[in-house]
Amino acid sequence: MQKLQTQWIVGFTDGEGCFFIGINKNSTMKQGLQILPEFTIVQHKKNIQTLYALKDYFQCGVVRTNHGDRMCYRVRGQKNLVNQILPFFEKHPLKTTKQIDFKKFRRVVLMIEQKQHLNEDGISKIRKIKNCMNL
Amino acid sequence: MQKLQTQWIVGFTDGEGCFFIGINKNSTMKQGLQILPEFTIVQHKKNIQTLYALKDYFQCGVVRTNHGDRMCYRVRGQKNLVNQILPFFEKHPLKTTKQIDFKKFRRVVLMIEQKQHLNEDGISKIRKIKNCMNL
Repeated sequence: MQKLQTQWIVGFTDGEGCFFIGINKNSTMKQGLQILPEFTIVQHKKNIQTLYALKDYFQCGVVRTNHGDRMCYRVRGQKNLVNQILPFFEKHPLKTTKQIDFKKFRRVVLMIEQKQHLNEDGISKIRKIKNCMNL
Repeated sequence: MQKLQTQWIVGFTDGEGCFFIGINKNSTMKQGLQILPEFTIVQHKKNIQTLYALKDYFQCGVVRTNHGDRMCYRVRGQKNLVNQILPFFEKHPLKTTKQIDFKKFRRVVLMIEQKQHLNEDGISKIRKIKNCMNL
């Protein structure tokens, strides 16, 4: 397994990482919506070993087919995001404007932690934050 | 000016860097061709400060408009490549398959150093190497 250094991961994420807030209809959820934050890094399948090295480093997430020849390392799940992904990028800030997206992503994950996504006002705020991300 | 760490640069290059061998017609050159190796990193213009930080780190190259909203940090010139770019990535290997492209790029730059690009046989070899890069 490749060993990845902290700053390599920061640089690679500045290049290839994506902090994304999914908002999906889901009739089993209280507001009929599921808020699904995810951190992903997409690569051509030839670099699959690098995606597994990221999974090994963060000790969470999955490596999946993304689209066609492309694979992704993806972390979902509140616990994984709160315990692994947020602390890593809080301690080791991104250097590009992706840092702005990370901060918005972090804000949404922390809102979910406070159960704010279970009321209409919270979802409306999350939607506004999402609409200002990855521009 | 942003300070960039070595491994951040390696990770960012694994994500966004490109090692490219240009072969252009040029009637002033001996074989009617100019071999133009270049190392580039393209970013949206909102990240222009990161491109200037790379320029500052390597102490060579230029920041230029690439296409539309995109800017690039670009290093050309045999001296810059031999003295700055090659030693950096020799000392700090890339972790993705971009390492394979770097090795081919390095081979071409060293062939040029040995003036092999001034004869037909050398140019033919360089062309073959170029055709197997960035696949």
